[in-house]
Amino acid sequence: MKILFLNGPNLNLLGTREPDIYGHDSLDDIVSQIRKHAAGLDIEVLDYQSNHEGGLIDFMHEHAPTADGMILNPGALTHYSIALRDAITSTGITTVEVHLSNIHQREQFRHHSVIAPVAVGQLVGFGFYGYIMALDWFNHTCRRSRAS
Amino acid sequence: MKILFLNGPNLNLLGTREPDIYGHDSLDDIVSQIRKHAAGLDIEVLDYQSNHEGGLIDFMHEHAPTADGMILNPGALTHYSIALRDAITSTGITTVEVHLSNIHQREQFRHHSVIAPVAVGQLVGFGFYGYIMALDWFNHTCRRSRAS
Amino acid sequence: MKILFLNGPNLNLLGTREPDIYGHDSLDDIVSQIRKHAAGLDIEVLDYQSNHEGGLIDFMHEHAPTADGMILNPGALTHYSIALRDAITSTGITTVEVHLSNIHQREQFRHHSVIAPVAVGQLVGFGFYGYIMALDWFNHTCRRSRAS
Amino acid sequence: MKILFLNGPNLNLLGTREPDIYGHDSLDDIVSQIRKHAAGLDIEVLDYQSNHEGGLIDFMHEHAPTADGMILNPGALTHYSIALRDAITSTGITTVEVHLSNIHQREQFRHHSVIAPVAVGQLVGFGFYGYIMALDWFNHTCRRSRAS
Amino acid sequence: MKILFLNGPNLNLLGTREPDIYGHDSLDDIVSQIRKHAAGLDIEVLDYQSNHEGGLIDFMHEHAPTADGMILNPGALTHYSIALRDAITSTGITTVEVHLSNIHQREQFRHHSVIAPVAVGQLVGFGFYGYIMALDWFNHTCRRSRAS
Amino acid sequence: MKILFLNGPNLNLLGTREPDIYGHDSLDDIVSQIRKHAAGLDIEVLDYQSNHEGGLIDFMHEHAPTADGMILNPGALTHYSIALRDAITSTGITTVEVHLSNIHQREQFRHHSVIAPVAVGQLVGFGFYGYIMALDWFNHTCRRSRAS
Amino acid sequence: MKILFLNGPNLNLLGTREPDIYGHDSLDDIVSQIRKHAAGLDIEVLDYQSNHEGGLIDFMHEHAPTADGMILNPGALTHYSIALRDAITSTGITTVEVHLSNIHQREQFRHHSVIAPVAVGQLVGFGFYGYIMALDWFNHTCRRSRAS
Amino acid sequence: MKILFLNGPNLNLLGTREPDIYGHDSLDDIVSQIRKHAAGLDIEVLDYQSNHEGGLIDFMHEHAPTADGMILNPGALTHYSIALRDAITSTGITTVEVHLSNIHQREQFRHHSVIAPVAVGQLVGFGFYGYIMALDWFNHTCRRSRAS
Amino acid sequence: MKILFLNGPNLNLLGTREPDIYGHDSLDDIVSQIRKHAAGLDIEVLDYQSNHEGGLIDFMHEHAPTADGMILNPGALTHYSIALRDAITSTGITTVEVHLSNIHQREQFRHHSVIAPVAVGQLVGFGFYGYIMALDWFNHTCRRSRAS
Amino acid sequence: MKILFLNGPNLNLLGTREPDIYGHDSLDDIVSQIRKHAAGLDIEVLDYQSNHEGGLIDFMHEHAPTADGMILNPGALTHYSIALRDAITSTGITTVEVHLSNIHQREQFRHHSVIAPVAVGQLVGFGFYGYIMALDWFNHTCRRSRAS
Amino acid sequence: MKILFLNGPNLNLLGTREPDIYGHDSLDDIVSQIRKHAAGLDIEVLDYQSNHEGGLIDFMHEHAPTADGMILNPGALTHYSIALRDAITSTGITTVEVHLSNIHQREQFRHHSVIAPVAVGQLVGFGFYGYIMALDWFNHTCRRSRAS
Amino acid sequence: MKILFLNGPNLNLLGTREPDIYGHDSLDDIVSQIRKHAAGLDIEVLDYQSNHEGGLIDFMHEHAPTADGMILNPGALTHYSIALRDAITSTGITTVEVHLSNIHQREQFRHHSVIAPVAVGQLVGFGFYGYIMALDWFNHTCRRSRAS
Repeated sequence: MKILFLNGPNLNLLGTREPDIYGHDSLDDIVSQIRKHAAGLDIEVLDYQSNHEGGLIDFMHEHAPTADGMILNPGALTHYSIALRDAITSTGITTVEVHLSNIHQREQFRHHSVIAPVAVGQLVGFGFYGYIMALDWFNHTCRRSRAS
Repeated sequence: MKILFLNGPNLNLLGTREPDIYGHDSLDDIVSQIRKHAAGLDIEVLDYQSNHEGGLIDFMHEHAPTADGMILNPGALTHYSIALRDAITSTGITTVEVHLSNIHQREQFRHHSVIAPVAVGQLVGFGFYGYIMALDWFNHTCRRSRAS
Repeated sequence: MKILFLNGPNLNLLGTREPDIYGHDSLDDIVSQIRKHAAGLDIEVLDYQSNHEGGLIDFMHEHAPTADGMILNPGALTHYSIALRDAITSTGITTVEVHLSNIHQREQFRHHSVIAPVAVGQLVGFGFYGYIMALDWFNHTCRRSRAS
Repeated sequence: MKILFLNGPNLNLLGTREPDIYGHDSLDDIVSQIRKHAAGLDIEVLDYQSNHEGGLIDFMHEHAPTADGMILNPGALTHYSIALRDAITSTGITTVEVHLSNIHQREQFRHHSVIAPVAVGQLVGFGFYGYIMALDWFNHTCRRSRAS
Repeated sequence: MKILFLNGPNLNLLGTREPDIYGHDSLDDIVSQIRKHAAGLDIEVLDYQSNHEGGLIDFMHEHAPTADGMILNPGALTHYSIALRDAITSTGITTVEVHLSNIHQREQFRHHSVIAPVAVGQLVGFGFYGYIMALDWFNHTCRRSRAS
Repeated sequence: MKILFLNGPNLNLLGTREPDIYGHDSLDDIVSQIRKHAAGLDIEVLDYQSNHEGGLIDFMHEHAPTADGMILNPGALTHYSIALRDAITSTGITTVEVHLSNIHQREQFRHHSVIAPVAVGQLVGFGFYGYIMALDWFNHTCRRSRAS
Repeated sequence: MKILFLNGPNLNLLGTREPDIYGHDSLDDIVSQIRKHAAGLDIEVLDYQSNHEGGLIDFMHEHAPTADGMILNPGALTHYSIALRDAITSTGITTVEVHLSNIHQREQFRHHSVIAPVAVGQLVGFGFYGYIMALDWFNHTCRRSRAS
Repeated sequence: MKILFLNGPNLNLLGTREPDIYGHDSLDDIVSQIRKHAAGLDIEVLDYQSNHEGGLIDFMHEHAPTADGMILNPGALTHYSIALRDAITSTGITTVEVHLSNIHQREQFRHHSVIAPVAVGQLVGFGFYGYIMALDWFNHTCRRSRAS
Repeated sequence: MKILFLNGPNLNLLGTREPDIYGHDSLDDIVSQIRKHAAGLDIEVLDYQSNHEGGLIDFMHEHAPTADGMILNPGALTHYSIALRDAITSTGITTVEVHLSNIHQREQFRHHSVIAPVAVGQLVGFGFYGYIMALDWFNHTCRRSRAS
Repeated sequence: MKILFLNGPNLNLLGTREPDIYGHDSLDDIVSQIRKHAAGLDIEVLDYQSNHEGGLIDFMHEHAPTADGMILNPGALTHYSIALRDAITSTGITTVEVHLSNIHQREQFRHHSVIAPVAVGQLVGFGFYGYIMALDWFNHTCRRSRAS
Repeated sequence: MKILFLNGPNLNLLGTREPDIYGHDSLDDIVSQIRKHAAGLDIEVLDYQSNHEGGLIDFMHEHAPTADGMILNPGALTHYSIALRDAITSTGITTVEVHLSNIHQREQFRHHSVIAPVAVGQLVGFGFYGYIMALDWFNHTCRRSRAS
Repeated sequence: MKILFLNGPNLNLLGTREPDIYGHDSLDDIVSQIRKHAAGLDIEVLDYQSNHEGGLIDFMHEHAPTADGMILNPGALTHYSIALRDAITSTGITTVEVHLSNIHQREQFRHHSVIAPVAVGQLVGFGFYGYIMALDWFNHTCRRSRAS
């Protein structure tokens, strides 16, 4: 199974950016841990980070056709990028939306996601472990469908 | 570790209630699978379901002092029960909110949770597997804090 | 045909409660008249009143499977009890919503019903006779479907 | 007793118009059945349909003074015709508002009626039988007031 | 000077319609008094009442080109008839909007006029004497422009 | 008859202030013309202008008990001074609200008057002649009540 | 192919009405040009203009059954006539909504169309040429479906 | 004089629940102090706490007929329990609403009370002493009405 | 202890102003009773009433530094005077907000107080006795802090 | 005449993306057909597609100075890209906004365009033929201005 | 050049009022520093502070005619004093609005200024140095216009 | 001291773009004048303009760590780019937001800035001189902190 792991604007600063909200791990640290966990599940992870909405969309257009799903942390684009949302419906890729912090405990404008209605599910507030949980779900779903 | 597993109104009908939204497993089936998974993680699960807001609050008041956390699916109370929310802050119990369906794909009034701002995190859309993911997070967090 | 007749909070005070709005008949008087009318239509009526949202839901879960329909006056729960609404869709029972007073002539917050979208129909403003009209509709519908 | 039976815009197309919503009976069919039912109750029915807001108002002005009540399906005018509403209060005619479909299950803008606050009561979702129910209420109310 | 005097839906019922709000004079009485007052000011009054939005617009289209101004009581159309508003801007006729009652003391929806922004001025709450005041204003404005 | 003539903030600048909106007459000019017109109607006018909300209220408290009515142009206070509104209801003085310009053709926030619901009537858009019209109304009403 | 060409309130004043917004052609001029263009496409045009909402609906009811489509400029009714909207869905006629001016550059209340959701498409801002474009689309669609 | 003292959801946790907001006294401590103060005023206090909306309503129905008034802290139900509100109007009991904290300094959703419009008065922010103040008011009112 | 007793616009008319809402006592009567009650508690009361927002602020600036608290009835300024609110936070004076009537039973715009979030507590609906209750609270709080 | 043909995010997936909404033609197919149609009108078409808001703006800045107009399908940027809107007013290019689907039949957030107020006109719902209609309008307008 | 320097309610408490928001300089200190800076630019400064909206307006009416501009910190009046706004447009004085704190980081109701739309520009968040920046701008603008 | 000078979408067109709003200086002219002014204050300026949200964020990520502050004109991104806002908080750079025009005098949607709450201060309406003022503030703040 091949899963895209996509991070939006400012997530490249993880570890330095507001660590009380986002934790002390850098994005590279997190990617390493995710790859390691994924390897144990026999999942290939293709990761990408960009501060450009268009860059994220280009990546999805290119890799969605050969992927089995996507773990997406859209960063601030969560709240207004209908283009990113349309990229999900356009490519038809099975998407799990993950937020490191609990967006419902922050500013009002962060409570609403334009992505959520086109994702399979959404995870908020579990820090980097949320990505692991998303991987586990893909593994679980995959095994279940193979079994049936 | 001891985790409360609390389900709100109408969730006793799982398996018969709108199966295309909520799946075919009964609540008993789900509790069994969760207990089994929890056992593997050395987690004790205390489960309760009620159609009474007050019943859920009474249960939390009684058992929160001796529990390490709670997995809560408030059902329809998600959207208006400030009393349930206050029970979480009053008892101070670490709470993970879980919804079987992706509430952001349903009616507008289901998009807002009064519980989410006082929960640690929220999971929506992963079916019964969301409860498993929540258990895994409690296990992960517990091991991490023991390690440190 | 067996019809549930369910009344929500404060409706046990009928006859004493604001009689200029709700009339002078007690709930017992009304139930008697309804039973009498129902008997003439060969309809069995199973009635229940509770001030507890959860009690109403429990009753519906228990009796909906053996009933042909429900006449429901949710009282104040009309305006916020999504749990009651979900009990209707969960049990799939054919429901007619009845209000004694014309809710559109009262406070703004009484104009909106969270129940109406999952009911077959709604009757407001006809006093206790609204229950009779609802019974007549069940009788009419039943005869029509038998005929076809 | 003489009752006006007034139908607003597009209701002349009943039977051909979206039959899954409004049923297969034509307005003429419905008028016939209503007259028949009314005859059994010794009620005279004076019916009128118009696609013109002004035409409906003219009719009410002319006939309300000699009528005992009105059954009104305002069609789409329900949602914006304050002029029709004022015609009810101006003539003082006792009015029952009827909608064939359950307007609360349709588009958001159909949930609000500007007529309801000046009607005695409102019936939605019972198809053409709603008109019968309204007639029965007039009959019931009339007998009750004669009795007292 | 020739002034149109236009009254909208239900104003033909003046004198009988809710006399505590609108007074006891019939529209005919009022027209007589206005004609008398206008005669003293050497103003010709052409009056029309209709319950049809379209009828009012037709009248304006026909007579605006030969009139010096219009006194308009749009009745309930005040609050939603953008078509009537457009008839004023389309014909370019100088319009004074008059309401017998103080619309700001009544239901919320009567507080807003879609006509007012295209009228020269608006008078509310002075009963039938508001029409006289409007006539006086036309007379005053006319004399002032002749003088200059 | 004695009428208070009260003008709010910035109306002392009439004639110099935005003359395309408010005209070229100074407040003194206008007061003179109003006194002259009032004299012809045997009305005594007591005028006051202040840029202080409190000053206007003090004046009303002092003079309302000996006056028969008030012509009030609250200026910008129209839109937020609930204290001025309460001064009208507290003193019980019959009040006509006048605006020189048509407030419905200006910025959105000028469309709403907190004064209007406690005034007898409101006149907007007739320039200084609006004050004359208000005087005429007081004269008319007075004569009518004497006659009855 | 037979196409209805329907124009709503005040459009009979085209050419004289606010020519900087709507242009200098009269409605007759426009109808002539449209007929000429239609003739070249072998399309029969049946045109009607009315200031009466009810008149427009009556026309649609009468002619929709024998027409292949409708070009509709609802004028001010665009913004509130749900009855006109229902006439489209009731008759099922394929409708193209056309506005001469760009309604999105005008007052806020003109930005919303209650018609658009039931039309096939909407054209705004192209002046009378918008009608030609609509005809071309009917021609294109017709040829395409014949070809397939 | 007999006064009901009713506390809603989570108030049984007083003293342990967020003591920086609600203080360190337990509900039992508070009840003792209130009984002591009441005894000095010759007032009998009947107290009840429940986490069940329905339980609170049942209690009111049972005891209101023999009580002279009620001191009510509805807890979180303040903000949505229209059923509780209706229980007050249904029983007609004179009610003083008390909140320990100043609800206007907390989350937006706590600023609005559905109970306040049917209470005689409301006290917020005075901690447990608010209950004493409410008792004093009942005592004051009672003595005043006896005196008159 | 020294307490400021501050009353806003129109409260000088107490006793004459709408006595069914505000009672028959004049402000002087009330001040006398409050002074008498305060004397019994060894509290000095410095009272002031003004119809000027600025006058109230000037008074607070002058006397807050030597006072222990303030009882404030802001009158209509409650609903919009952010300047008064800022005077409370600027001087840091402990403030109890009192309203004679239950503002939640009156017009919608009276339900919101801009003062409440910076007051210690708020009392509404207890008539002039609310001032006595506020004094008692100051006395209680003072004694309690001396004791600790 | 030279016309820019600009397509926003995800429109490169046309033909594969949700074909029931957007049709089966690829963007290349559509460009070919448009070029062919344009050639017949002696119009040069310069086309560009990007998923980057900034890329679209860069293109407009570069080519607008030498172009006679632009046909723009902004995709999802329609609903929030004020930067794209400003690029239109900054370059002053005559713009026709085209949407393949009828945006008024889709999700609420797609009903509003931030582009429309600065476009000459807008076309929605005509599929790829909308681009042809836009070209025809440029041709028509051009010929008309040459003629005058 | 002569510049008015006007400060609204509570700004006389600067230095003592919430120093973490507004700094430790008193208004007198600030005026001294501004005069000193202004002297270096050959600008005369006329300063005034008042807690009275009307006092500020009176000052503007008196001194605007002989001044070249105004630096205005309206304090809390920023958010509701339309009368102050009208004083700016009535006198036509060039106005720079200054706020010491960043109003966009504070309560929601402080984000909106009714003054800003009639000011030349607005400066927020620079503490007392904002006044210096405003002076510099007046100096820059003045020199520039002299130069041209 | 090193200051970043960042300009968002369409600001590269300054001088040609709507010169009545934005002035006649090109961005290059402005950068030259700013560098010159900065040189006099011993401030190094690093400037960048991009039409790409992502490009602006990339630049901030790269250069913020070595800069003392940033002058930011986000252009249209002001109103929706939460990603840009997050880049400010993520890098922690001291930011002054500058707008050439007074955004409060333009369209409603330009009144709100998502950037302002995370900037130190905001300047609007002073044309290019606003950038100079921002530089002066950085110089002032720097000298002040060195002095202390």
